[in-house]
Amino acid sequence: MSLKLAVYPGSFDPITLGHMDIIRRASGMFDRLIVAVVGNINKKSTFTLEEREALVRRAVEAEHLSNVTFDRYSGLVAEYVKSVGATTLVRGLRAVSDFESEFQMALANRQIYSGADTVFLVTSAEYMYLSSSLVREIGRYGGDIRHIVPACVADDIADKLLKVGV
Amino acid sequence: MSLKLAVYPGSFDPITLGHMDIIRRASGMFDRLIVAVVGNINKKSTFTLEEREALVRRAVEAEHLSNVTFDRYSGLVAEYVKSVGATTLVRGLRAVSDFESEFQMALANRQIYSGADTVFLVTSAEYMYLSSSLVREIGRYGGDIRHIVPACVADDIADKLLKVGV
Amino acid sequence: MSLKLAVYPGSFDPITLGHMDIIRRASGMFDRLIVAVVGNINKKSTFTLEEREALVRRAVEAEHLSNVTFDRYSGLVAEYVKSVGATTLVRGLRAVSDFESEFQMALANRQIYSGADTVFLVTSAEYMYLSSSLVREIGRYGGDIRHIVPACVADDIADKLLKVGV
Amino acid sequence: MSLKLAVYPGSFDPITLGHMDIIRRASGMFDRLIVAVVGNINKKSTFTLEEREALVRRAVEAEHLSNVTFDRYSGLVAEYVKSVGATTLVRGLRAVSDFESEFQMALANRQIYSGADTVFLVTSAEYMYLSSSLVREIGRYGGDIRHIVPACVADDIADKLLKVGV
Amino acid sequence: MSLKLAVYPGSFDPITLGHMDIIRRASGMFDRLIVAVVGNINKKSTFTLEEREALVRRAVEAEHLSNVTFDRYSGLVAEYVKSVGATTLVRGLRAVSDFESEFQMALANRQIYSGADTVFLVTSAEYMYLSSSLVREIGRYGGDIRHIVPACVADDIADKLLKVGV
Amino acid sequence: MSLKLAVYPGSFDPITLGHMDIIRRASGMFDRLIVAVVGNINKKSTFTLEEREALVRRAVEAEHLSNVTFDRYSGLVAEYVKSVGATTLVRGLRAVSDFESEFQMALANRQIYSGADTVFLVTSAEYMYLSSSLVREIGRYGGDIRHIVPACVADDIADKLLKVGV
Repeated sequence: MSLKLAVYPGSFDPITLGHMDIIRRASGMFDRLIVAVVGNINKKSTFTLEEREALVRRAVEAEHLSNVTFDRYSGLVAEYVKSVGATTLVRGLRAVSDFESEFQMALANRQIYSGADTVFLVTSAEYMYLSSSLVREIGRYGGDIRHIVPACVADDIADKLLKVGV
Repeated sequence: MSLKLAVYPGSFDPITLGHMDIIRRASGMFDRLIVAVVGNINKKSTFTLEEREALVRRAVEAEHLSNVTFDRYSGLVAEYVKSVGATTLVRGLRAVSDFESEFQMALANRQIYSGADTVFLVTSAEYMYLSSSLVREIGRYGGDIRHIVPACVADDIADKLLKVGV
Repeated sequence: MSLKLAVYPGSFDPITLGHMDIIRRASGMFDRLIVAVVGNINKKSTFTLEEREALVRRAVEAEHLSNVTFDRYSGLVAEYVKSVGATTLVRGLRAVSDFESEFQMALANRQIYSGADTVFLVTSAEYMYLSSSLVREIGRYGGDIRHIVPACVADDIADKLLKVGV
Repeated sequence: MSLKLAVYPGSFDPITLGHMDIIRRASGMFDRLIVAVVGNINKKSTFTLEEREALVRRAVEAEHLSNVTFDRYSGLVAEYVKSVGATTLVRGLRAVSDFESEFQMALANRQIYSGADTVFLVTSAEYMYLSSSLVREIGRYGGDIRHIVPACVADDIADKLLKVGV
Repeated sequence: MSLKLAVYPGSFDPITLGHMDIIRRASGMFDRLIVAVVGNINKKSTFTLEEREALVRRAVEAEHLSNVTFDRYSGLVAEYVKSVGATTLVRGLRAVSDFESEFQMALANRQIYSGADTVFLVTSAEYMYLSSSLVREIGRYGGDIRHIVPACVADDIADKLLKVGV
Repeated sequence: MSLKLAVYPGSFDPITLGHMDIIRRASGMFDRLIVAVVGNINKKSTFTLEEREALVRRAVEAEHLSNVTFDRYSGLVAEYVKSVGATTLVRGLRAVSDFESEFQMALANRQIYSGADTVFLVTSAEYMYLSSSLVREIGRYGGDIRHIVPACVADDIADKLLKVGV
C-alpha cells in the first residue's frame, strides 16, 4: 500500500492560527504532509519569502508533528505537486468568496496534473473569519494579534507589522 | 503507520455520475473507503434503502475499485464514523448552497466525534450542477438520464422513476 | 432571417410585479414571447392552474403587449420549448439562491434539448426581493399586497389568499 | 428623548446558545427588548408554542437581563412590531442563505410598517453555524446538545427530542 | 438609563444616496449618531479626506437630523469607537460579497474592543446595488450621477470626477 | 418587425473558449451580434487593445458566424450600446461573485440608457470556472493553455504570456 503524501501550499503572509489548525488536521489524515511556501505571488507580500518560511517552520515545529516537512516552490502549484509525487493538495476553506476561487484553482490544477486532487478542510469555527490580511490590518495599527497567530511567533510578527506601519 | 480509513456517506437517491466521480477520487486518496448509505433520512426517499444500496454496489463494483467497501447506517453519521474507526469523512462539494449546510454538518460532526474530520472533494466541472433530485426530476417525465447516472444501472433507475411518475 | 421565439415559463402562484417586469423586458427583446404556465409542480400550488393562468392573462393583456401569447404545459420545460419551436427560454434572476438552481436547470434543459438556450433577465431593483411566496405570506394575514401584484388582479389575489388563510 | 424599544422575534424551536448570544447583545444596545415567540409558523414546530415560550423565558431569566421581556404573537411580525410601538426589529445573521431570506423579510416588513427598521446582529464565531434544526437533528438521536443550548434547559430539551425520536 | 451612542464609519469616497439612507435610519434608532470619515485607507481615495468630510457634512446637514454629528478618525475603527464611548457600530449591508468581509471585520472589532457591537442595516431596495465605486465609474465618463448622490452635492461630485477623468 | 441587435462587450484579455461559447449562443439568439472590445479598462491589460481585438477577430472568424461583427469602444458601455442602436447587452455568467458585480452593472446601465437591457447567458459546464485571468496565470508559467483558448490563436497567446512571464 503506497504512502499518501499531501501538499499544503500557501503564501502564509504571515501564518495564522487558522493555518495551524489546517496543518494539524491534515497531518493526522495523510501519511506525510509538506507545507509549501510559494515564492512568487502576484501581489507583493508584506513578509519576505525567507521570513514567511521561517515563521511557518518555527510555528509548526513547536507542535511536534513528526510527519510534517517544509518546502518552498515557485511557478504552478500543480507542477510542484507532481514533482514531489504527492496525490493530494490540501486547502483550507472558509467563506463563500474563498470557495469560488478555490474551485477554479482546483479544476485548473487537475487539468495541469491529473495525478493529484484537491481536498478542502474546514478550520474550527473560531478561525472561520480569520485571514493573513486581517492579521496585517490589525498589526500595522499596533492592535493585539496574540490570539490569532501562533504564540511562539506572535512578537516577531507584531514587530514587523508595526515597522511596516500605515 | 496506521491505515487511513475514510467514509463517504450519503442518501444516494439514486447514485449519479457525480457520486461516482467522488468515489473514484477518494478511493485513490485513502487506504480504504466505505461508501455508507444512510437508512433514515428526514424526507421520504424515492428509492428504498435496499434499492439505493444495491444501485450503489452495482455501480461501484463495475469500476473495480479494490479498496472500496459498502455499508448502511442510521443515526448520526459522526457516531457511525467513530464506530468503524475512520479518521476521515468524505463529502462532495458543488455549489454555494451545499457549502453552507455542509459546513454546519462538518462542525457539528466534529463536536460529536473529534477523532475524525471532514474533507470536501470537487467533482469534475461537468458534474458540478448534477444532483439526485435532478435525476429524479428528469426521470419521472421520461427524459433521458443515461448521461448523468452510471451506465450499468441507468435502465433500472429510469424504469423506477417512470413508475413513480408525476 | 428567422423570427426569434422565446418562452417564459413559470408557476405564477400568483403573478407578481416582478414577473410583469420580466415579461415587458422580454417582449421587447424577442419577436414573439410565450408566457407558459406549468400545470404540474412538485409542491401543491395555492392557486389552481386555471386561476394562475387567468391571472397571468388578465395582467398581461392590461399591458397591451401585442407579441405576447399564453400557454400551459406539463412535463419537462425543455420538451415544451422544443415542441413550440422556440430558441430561447427566459428566466428572471434575483438572488444568489435563485442563481444556483437556475444554473442547474439551464444546464439540464440544454442537455434535454440543445436547440434552445436559457437567458436570464434582471428585474428592476425594487422587485429584486419580491416573490410569489412573499405575496402569499403577506396576503394570507390580510396584509396589503397592492404594491407587489398587478393592479387589475390585486383584489382577486387578496380575496383568494384571505380565504386560504393561516 | 424617547425610549428605544426593540423586538427580537423567532420560532425558538428550541432556543439555542446562538439565540442567547443575540439577546444579550441586543439587550445592551436598546433601552428595552421584547423576545417574541411566533405562534403560527408555516411548518409544524417540534416544540409546542407553550414549550418554546417557557424554554425562552427560563433561559433568559437565568441571565438576569432586567430590560428584557417576553411575548408571543401571530400574524405578520411587522404588524406586531407596530402594535407594541417598537422602532427596531432585531435579527441574528449567520450564513449566506440566511442573508437573502432575511433581506427579503426586512424589505417586506418595511413596506408593511415603515415606522420600524430591521437590524442584523452577528453571533460569536462559535455559534455561527448553530441552528435550532441542528439541535433537533443531534438531539433526536440522543447526541449531546449541552454545548449548544442554554445549560438550565438542556435536559428538558434533550428529553423532549429523544421522545420525538427518529 | 444611559444614552445610546452609535458610530457609522466609512470612507465615503464620495457619499451616495445609499449612505444617506443608512444615516437617516440609524439616526432614528439610536440617541446619537456619529458619522466618522476614515482618514487612512488602504487604497488611495479619489476624493481627499477634506473633500469627503465636507461632502458628508453638507449632505447630512441638508437633512436636518439633529442627533447626528461628524468626526474623522484614523487607525482601527474599534479603537475609535471605544475612544468616543459608543456601544454600537453601524454598517450598511448590501450584497453577498459585502456580507463576508463585513462579518470578518465585525468579529475582529469585537475582539479588539468588546464594549461595542456591530449592527447591520439594510438600505432601500433601490440603493441595494449602489456603491461609491459605481458613482466614480459613471462620473469619470461624464455620465449622469444625480439620481445616486445627494442633490446638494451632486454638481461638486460630478465636477471633481470629470477632472479625475479616465 | 425590427431587427434585434445585441452587443457582447468585454476586455477579452485574452479571449477564452468560454467567451467563444457565449458568442456562439448569442449569435443564434439575435439577428446581429457585435463583439465589442473595451479600450479603456481600470487595471492595465496584459494584451494591448490591438492584440485583444485581433485575437477576438481571428477566433470568431474561424467559426464562420455570419451575423457577428466587431468593434471597439471606450467610456460607458451603455452609451456605446445606445450609439449603435442595440436593444440587448449580452453577458456570460459564471459564479456567484460574477453575479453580484454583473447585477450592479446591469442596473447601472439601465439607468444610463433605458432603451437596452442586459441578458445573461450560461456557458457550458466545462467552461464555468474558466476566466482570462486563469489563462494568464497558467500561460505565464509555461503551462498548457490549448484546452482553454481557441485553437487558432493558442500559440500566439502562449508566446505572449511566456514573454510577459512572472
